[in-house]
Amino acid sequence: MFEKVKIAIIMGSKSDWATMKRAADVLDMFGVAYEKKVVSAHRTPDLMFTFAESARERGIEVIIAGAGGAAHLPGMVAAKTTLPVIGVPVKSRALNGLDSLLSIVQMPGGVPVATMSIGESGAQNAGLYALQILAISDSDLAERYAKFRANQEKAVIESSDDLD
Amino acid sequence: MFEKVKIAIIMGSKSDWATMKRAADVLDMFGVAYEKKVVSAHRTPDLMFTFAESARERGIEVIIAGAGGAAHLPGMVAAKTTLPVIGVPVKSRALNGLDSLLSIVQMPGGVPVATMSIGESGAQNAGLYALQILAISDSDLAERYAKFRANQEKAVIESSDDLD
Amino acid sequence: MFEKVKIAIIMGSKSDWATMKRAADVLDMFGVAYEKKVVSAHRTPDLMFTFAESARERGIEVIIAGAGGAAHLPGMVAAKTTLPVIGVPVKSRALNGLDSLLSIVQMPGGVPVATMSIGESGAQNAGLYALQILAISDSDLAERYAKFRANQEKAVIESSDDLD
Amino acid sequence: MFEKVKIAIIMGSKSDWATMKRAADVLDMFGVAYEKKVVSAHRTPDLMFTFAESARERGIEVIIAGAGGAAHLPGMVAAKTTLPVIGVPVKSRALNGLDSLLSIVQMPGGVPVATMSIGESGAQNAGLYALQILAISDSDLAERYAKFRANQEKAVIESSDDLD
Amino acid sequence: MFEKVKIAIIMGSKSDWATMKRAADVLDMFGVAYEKKVVSAHRTPDLMFTFAESARERGIEVIIAGAGGAAHLPGMVAAKTTLPVIGVPVKSRALNGLDSLLSIVQMPGGVPVATMSIGESGAQNAGLYALQILAISDSDLAERYAKFRANQEKAVIESSDDLD
Amino acid sequence: MFEKVKIAIIMGSKSDWATMKRAADVLDMFGVAYEKKVVSAHRTPDLMFTFAESARERGIEVIIAGAGGAAHLPGMVAAKTTLPVIGVPVKSRALNGLDSLLSIVQMPGGVPVATMSIGESGAQNAGLYALQILAISDSDLAERYAKFRANQEKAVIESSDDLD
Amino acid sequence: MFEKVKIAIIMGSKSDWATMKRAADVLDMFGVAYEKKVVSAHRTPDLMFTFAESARERGIEVIIAGAGGAAHLPGMVAAKTTLPVIGVPVKSRALNGLDSLLSIVQMPGGVPVATMSIGESGAQNAGLYALQILAISDSDLAERYAKFRANQEKAVIESSDDLD
Amino acid sequence: MFEKVKIAIIMGSKSDWATMKRAADVLDMFGVAYEKKVVSAHRTPDLMFTFAESARERGIEVIIAGAGGAAHLPGMVAAKTTLPVIGVPVKSRALNGLDSLLSIVQMPGGVPVATMSIGESGAQNAGLYALQILAISDSDLAERYAKFRANQEKAVIESSDDLD
Repeated sequence: MFEKVKIAIIMGSKSDWATMKRAADVLDMFGVAYEKKVVSAHRTPDLMFTFAESARERGIEVIIAGAGGAAHLPGMVAAKTTLPVIGVPVKSRALNGLDSLLSIVQMPGGVPVATMSIGESGAQNAGLYALQILAISDSDLAERYAKFRANQEKAVIESSDDLD
Repeated sequence: MFEKVKIAIIMGSKSDWATMKRAADVLDMFGVAYEKKVVSAHRTPDLMFTFAESARERGIEVIIAGAGGAAHLPGMVAAKTTLPVIGVPVKSRALNGLDSLLSIVQMPGGVPVATMSIGESGAQNAGLYALQILAISDSDLAERYAKFRANQEKAVIESSDDLD
Repeated sequence: MFEKVKIAIIMGSKSDWATMKRAADVLDMFGVAYEKKVVSAHRTPDLMFTFAESARERGIEVIIAGAGGAAHLPGMVAAKTTLPVIGVPVKSRALNGLDSLLSIVQMPGGVPVATMSIGESGAQNAGLYALQILAISDSDLAERYAKFRANQEKAVIESSDDLD
Repeated sequence: MFEKVKIAIIMGSKSDWATMKRAADVLDMFGVAYEKKVVSAHRTPDLMFTFAESARERGIEVIIAGAGGAAHLPGMVAAKTTLPVIGVPVKSRALNGLDSLLSIVQMPGGVPVATMSIGESGAQNAGLYALQILAISDSDLAERYAKFRANQEKAVIESSDDLD
Repeated sequence: MFEKVKIAIIMGSKSDWATMKRAADVLDMFGVAYEKKVVSAHRTPDLMFTFAESARERGIEVIIAGAGGAAHLPGMVAAKTTLPVIGVPVKSRALNGLDSLLSIVQMPGGVPVATMSIGESGAQNAGLYALQILAISDSDLAERYAKFRANQEKAVIESSDDLD
Repeated sequence: MFEKVKIAIIMGSKSDWATMKRAADVLDMFGVAYEKKVVSAHRTPDLMFTFAESARERGIEVIIAGAGGAAHLPGMVAAKTTLPVIGVPVKSRALNGLDSLLSIVQMPGGVPVATMSIGESGAQNAGLYALQILAISDSDLAERYAKFRANQEKAVIESSDDLD
Repeated sequence: MFEKVKIAIIMGSKSDWATMKRAADVLDMFGVAYEKKVVSAHRTPDLMFTFAESARERGIEVIIAGAGGAAHLPGMVAAKTTLPVIGVPVKSRALNGLDSLLSIVQMPGGVPVATMSIGESGAQNAGLYALQILAISDSDLAERYAKFRANQEKAVIESSDDLD
Repeated sequence: MFEKVKIAIIMGSKSDWATMKRAADVLDMFGVAYEKKVVSAHRTPDLMFTFAESARERGIEVIIAGAGGAAHLPGMVAAKTTLPVIGVPVKSRALNGLDSLLSIVQMPGGVPVATMSIGESGAQNAGLYALQILAISDSDLAERYAKFRANQEKAVIESSDDLD
């Protein structure tokens, strides 16, 4: 049977995929379907609006959006949908992602974006956070997620043995 | 009938309430029940762990956590629960909340915190984001939220008339 | 006879008018007509797109856009028109406009925004820069602008006498 | 027939050419003539003044100026001409161009510089912005520019297919 | 006879060992015993609490804790023990350790962490500072430490001869 | 009987006392004796050296040093003694203590300073940290300190009742 | 007999006098003559060049230049004279003088500016540094300066008595 | 005949020589004698004081001091001599010299340090500034310096020819 796609991963440029792939990896690991797409706020504004407006009716429940520099994609998508948007600040060339971070996180009151950390760990966490949201009403996913966390804990504890 | 409390608002110090009240105001406006509590990562670590561990079984679905300076509360709560945590960087005295922001947003891969903007607008957005999460499986709330957005849009448009 | 409006001043929130008024003051001083409007990238995205798409055909030649925080207005308007957009970073509450500045200036290759300094002096300069653009093909304006500069120079020189 | 040169590209040091070439590439792509020159605010101040003073009468309509560190070139040229100046903050060695950016963008009220993003994308955008200014009174250029934008949009959309 | 272990070196991730090894090197050089362990605030919160709660009774007198990014380990351990905690901000990927530094040093009044410099020199200094604390009531150690300092001084003076 | 003075509080300027008083308040609360003195690294360098050199023999066991701006006092005192030095970055006029923080915390390998947070909370924590160091070999103080922490915890928990 | 004026104090705007007066106060205290003038790099570029070019022949030996924001005055004057220039970053509105500092201090190799601290203390130090330069070949001034330093030292030591 | 040594170049660590050599290169080019030495504020404080105290009587007229991180050397030497001190912020590992810059430039009122730009260009400029100071009372040097500037100007102008 075909699984319903509830998560979308979008990014401002193809080069952001190196970072955003980490979100996809998380979803793959959990076997959760997603769509992925390059959607540029500045170079494809109409596509962005169409994407955001139609996301809910297409069954999307959470949107993960990564962008760098003057990173307007997460905030603008959030402006055009009431679905939860998770923003990933991609590391930028000159300012190492500080510009991306501030452009995404400093949203004005009224339109929230859930901002993750800069770069690959942020993309990974975006995938995890999307799962945490879906798990609220999906007890099976919640259980598998809890197991993931327990394994993660175990892995860290064991890593201590390798310090020498 | 008694409404089930699904949202918790916690903060690192009583003085953060001036900021975090904005999250509560949003929930009040939507008539959504919440609990609120001072929970300090550094001064009441055990309370924090007990709070985070028991949140899911108590029916909480989303946790809003505000803190300033070396703001560890959102991240530590996120480490002790698999519920979605929304972090609000409270404006700090010396560094205006830049320290709060980085302490909350720069989480390592594996444990996400959804970070909002610094200060009152961030607290307001935390309330809104919690509603967006709950609205995924609550179509009535989703509808009321969409209406809120439409009203907000209308208010901005009308404000243009007052420019002179 | 009715003067054609070639300059638009837009801003993300009514509260930005305190800053953006300085752009209007410059245009008033030169007797150049302009329209002014509150257009929020996040709260009125559709209005923003309609505004930007129709600006050229309505005769607008230069757009001045001011916004604070995650300031997406100038960049998004620039994405929807090929008219020159001048961005003014409005001073923000927590980060004093550093977030506004980076959100506006760090545009990706392909869609430029001409960024001015933070706050009131930036708004004033936005007005002046718009005039400099129009003056390229308006020798009368160019002459009056040159005079303004000469007067400004004279005023600074005379101010030296008041140092004691 | 000989095309009139309306755009000048200047830079503070020969080493800035690696960055500023991106502005030239844009103009080459559009077949728009330009002059290019090393003009250092600090090491050739008289040349800079002569250049700026004579630019208008030589037919220059827009000046693109790139510099790094204590980047005074764009602002000083803007002080000596009433032509629109576009500043490009070149990435600097120690501070990655944050110093260049602030030195260029934080101009006082009275003398504007249109600041682009740090580095190569800023140089590219400087070229594009110069074209946008010229296109106001050149409908042929405006049309070709609109086509460039449409192509850019198409290229981004197609890039989505390569994500895997 | 078995020497009592008075110093613990903990770190948020195995990859921090490259940095924290410098603290261990100092203790090795002085022949002072220590334990070392990976303890992640976010991925092994319970281990962290158990570690911190039991440290004093296990005879630990000083805890050195290194972490990067949203570095919560030093502060949270400090919240769960009254032993002196020395925090080492590990250099982070995007922000070079500025986030680590602010997350560690900006502790609220009530729970101090002694913060060292970012990276390897900070780890080395953490080892030295631990020794300075122990030397207060250990005159033999104090003497050896004073000798170390005298040698260090001599080494710097001699290094001057190699300038050419 | 006269209590031995084991803690010194020094500061770079009389105006720093407003901040550093918070360290003294902590010691007063615990009834622990201390000396306090204005010692400027830049304006009284010889006094600083004499102070630092003689501290150990005068019975001082921990030195708390506060300074702002190019805050050299803690690091220079640390260079002239092997006693543990605790540095407090005093909030500075222009840069809000970021300069003080970096000047104190970024010590090179070989000479550590235990840096606290910027401003009053940092001064308070300096007092607390000094007590934590002394408590290693003073079980009575350790017990009273543990009680202080327990009270602090209780106070935070009770503060939750006042949120409305 | 008329004393020769060897020091010039210039500033970018009349409003900078509130800061730069501190340099003048120092010179007044030492009875050293100076000239003072508003010279704006951006609004009076020709005056600036004339001033800088003629300074040496008019007998000026040291130039103190204060400016804020994109502070180009010290660097441009340094470009037009080989006299030592001392730059004072005036505190700016939005960025507290960080922009002024970087614009003044980050001069490229070839044209140095001696940069002081931000604001009033920087202006005071500019006056002192000018005296230190002149004192190299003026043993009377050197002696008076040494006395000033000794008095300053004494004043700090005495201030310690007022701590309570 | 033996030339009198009037300039001293000191640095906090042997590794700073890679940077500070650029100051020496300038002096070598002008044939001006200098002494060079590793003097660490933190690891050789007594040597530093002896050096600074004796500099004037040994005939030194200008001191160039380079250091990185918590760079206390220039300020502490300035505290112990009334000779002009020129500070060079050496690029640091984690923070790229921003810490070095703030530690050197933000001196309190009363003890100035003439700060140069971060890294090699700052070292080069320190050498040049020292010459500018000496040239006040050495017309031969002044003339040679003016020639150096003229050549530098010529070299920049010629570099323009190589842009293609």
